[in-house]
Amino acid sequence: MHVDIGNALSSVASPGVSRDSLERLDEQVATAHERIETGMANADHGYEALNLPERTDPDEIRAAVEPIADAEALLTIGIGGSSLGAATITNALESDTETVFLDNVDPAWVSNHLERLPLAETAINVVSRSGTTAETLANFLVVRVAFESAGVDWTERTIVTTGDSGPLRDLVERHGLPSLLVPDGVPGRFSALSAVGMVAAAVCGHDLEALLAGAAAERETLTGSLFDCPAYAYGATTYALDQRGAGVNAIMPYAESLETSAEWFAQLWAESLGKDDLGQTPVRALGVTDQHSQLQLYRAGPRDKLVTFVTTEESADRPIPTTDVEDLAYLGDATLGELLAAEFEATEASLAAAGRPNVRVELERVDEYELGGLLYGMEAACVLAGELYGVNTFEQPAVEWAKKATRGLLGGGDFEEAAAVAEKTELRVER
Amino acid sequence: MHVDIGNALSSVASPGVSRDSLERLDEQVATAHERIETGMANADHGYEALNLPERTDPDEIRAAVEPIADAEALLTIGIGGSSLGAATITNALESDTETVFLDNVDPAWVSNHLERLPLAETAINVVSRSGTTAETLANFLVVRVAFESAGVDWTERTIVTTGDSGPLRDLVERHGLPSLLVPDGVPGRFSALSAVGMVAAAVCGHDLEALLAGAAAERETLTGSLFDCPAYAYGATTYALDQRGAGVNAIMPYAESLETSAEWFAQLWAESLGKDDLGQTPVRALGVTDQHSQLQLYRAGPRDKLVTFVTTEESADRPIPTTDVEDLAYLGDATLGELLAAEFEATEASLAAAGRPNVRVELERVDEYELGGLLYGMEAACVLAGELYGVNTFEQPAVEWAKKATRGLLGGGDFEEAAAVAEKTELRVER
Repeated sequence: MHVDIGNALSSVASPGVSRDSLERLDEQVATAHERIETGMANADHGYEALNLPERTDPDEIRAAVEPIADAEALLTIGIGGSSLGAATITNALESDTETVFLDNVDPAWVSNHLERLPLAETAINVVSRSGTTAETLANFLVVRVAFESAGVDWTERTIVTTGDSGPLRDLVERHGLPSLLVPDGVPGRFSALSAVGMVAAAVCGHDLEALLAGAAAERETLTGSLFDCPAYAYGATTYALDQRGAGVNAIMPYAESLETSAEWFAQLWAESLGKDDLGQTPVRALGVTDQHSQLQLYRAGPRDKLVTFVTTEESADRPIPTTDVEDLAYLGDATLGELLAAEFEATEASLAAAGRPNVRVELERVDEYELGGLLYGMEAACVLAGELYGVNTFEQPAVEWAKKATRGLLGGGDFEEAAAVAEKTELRVER
Repeated sequence: MHVDIGNALSSVASPGVSRDSLERLDEQVATAHERIETGMANADHGYEALNLPERTDPDEIRAAVEPIADAEALLTIGIGGSSLGAATITNALESDTETVFLDNVDPAWVSNHLERLPLAETAINVVSRSGTTAETLANFLVVRVAFESAGVDWTERTIVTTGDSGPLRDLVERHGLPSLLVPDGVPGRFSALSAVGMVAAAVCGHDLEALLAGAAAERETLTGSLFDCPAYAYGATTYALDQRGAGVNAIMPYAESLETSAEWFAQLWAESLGKDDLGQTPVRALGVTDQHSQLQLYRAGPRDKLVTFVTTEESADRPIPTTDVEDLAYLGDATLGELLAAEFEATEASLAAAGRPNVRVELERVDEYELGGLLYGMEAACVLAGELYGVNTFEQPAVEWAKKATRGLLGGGDFEEAAAVAEKTELRVER
């Protein structure tokens, strides 16, 4: 990926960062880079994620998915980091294999998917490091019974990605299921470039080597200066803008195929940096659609935002037919792609003209190589930002409370958190 | 809808609002309510939207869609307020009619839809008040030619919702197309309960009278006190929390069927209130999925957020099969619906336990009546909030700049905004 931070400069925007400030910040970047390099060299928890381009073995993944490689549909059961990386890749790229991600426990929605899918032609991709994630395991139990009811042997059609112990690992051993390991030291939201994200890509026939090569090319740019490294330029700029009041980071790809990447980014950013009362709030947006929804706020609301555009230089196109309606004639000389590009440039410029900071992340096109670069680049940006904030980027302690309370409420043990639920303060206004 | 603001009180959360402050704020609510009632009585621009439960004629809508009522698929071409209301309703409710919303100009995505849809069995619902919206008209031109290429007469399968003049109105007259009026005085984001939102609902066979009755029931609660009116309770509380630092409003329905309602809410909130450097930033989230993505930030990040939960009391359910895995046995005593409910209660309580403000918006179930209430209630909440902020709720001037620039870039006229695009400040970091 390439990154253009020109519209985040204080000469353009407020909040904005001056070139002098960026030079000073670059000294902190150099120090942070040393810590990152050391963490990578030692395979320390979290930093190990940045080694995935060399660690992940595409042949191993392809061999594991071989028994289900002819599936018409792939049902991935996972949530959060066990789902969003895979969804980002497979939703971005064309494939004959339909992909469905069961990342929620809404009963009607789960039932609709199971009724609609051709189960005899569907493969199951279940992903949970611990093997105990409540939503994932509940859905897996439901899916297994649905397959059995349809007379389909789920043990013939399931691949498991999990840790080296736990209920899913036990299941693998009992049924001899194909399986892969969630790599040690790689938190879920940083695992898109491991088996966690790449099993689905492999089943869909995507080029795993190109995904890793794109990531490796980004890895090569990790040097001690934000001026030489797109990932660090992005991470340092977002950090500097947050320091100056841009507590919101709206990520706005200008491609429907990249819509899921904004969800993936939102988890990466929120769960990694949202701690110790710090962290930017990610907002998922989509160009051009959200120009007609969010742009008013971005341009004229509080000066608390950075807008991150993600653009592609090349894409498929389609001409707009000519029309004899005078007021619309200008459209007929263009293509949809030209309209999309003009809308992006206009929106970017409209924010700059209003002094609102924005950053452009450029991909050459949407393919495996560029996606690998985007995933790796944003992860590296996030790790750098975490170093600059001084937070523990790779933990997510604040989600434990609700997990315990959920378990307690369902009778899965004695947890004081569950008792607290009953003490809710009410001030209810009824219709 | 019912609203519970107990977890927004200062006794629970920081930022939070004290009961005394709410009492004082209620005096402002009373004054604002008088302005709202006057605006409604005079059918003033914007306020007229709150009269839609009485103004909209379901028979007229059903009569207009009659020629296309048997379509297998409905392709709605519109963007922003011309799309999100309809999508909120039809994505929430089950129907045999497939709905597709062309609300973007991404060429590959548009082409994929047109290749996939059975055009001979597809109806077109084109919506633009001015009849000149670039994205909508470009897509409509593309769609018409695709129908022609497939040998399907689009004039037999198209319904138009537009203003009383403009290119789409001319087209209606030239081809004798069925058409409906975008009502005067009703901005797009407030038009879900007019023909703009209800044509798609009618084609899908949903109960239009129930949608309007649910809205009318909410309208009955519009009195001069936030303590008697769920909509005002919500609008006043969000305003008070924003004043106290909660500049972000994360809306998090706990139902997949309500996911689009969060997008609709985000436009309503952003475009209505995001002006004069004011306005809360809406963030779309989804329970339970985003517990594994955003909850860490919401619970432990900056104290700049309100989380708005939208819950339903009744829904379809599905048992979780029992398992002999000890660590998972508790799941087998429950249903997916119970798991979903426990996760919601746990998440709500986990935010309260961390002193993070949150509000619960309760629907009894997802049906036409309750959806009508949600749409109307949130619109009324937004109008009240606009009065309290003192902004011009019903305009969106900041989006004009980019529209002019886009048009200029495509050769549709001479606009200084287009010239500004070329002057972009660059600071590019390449891979």
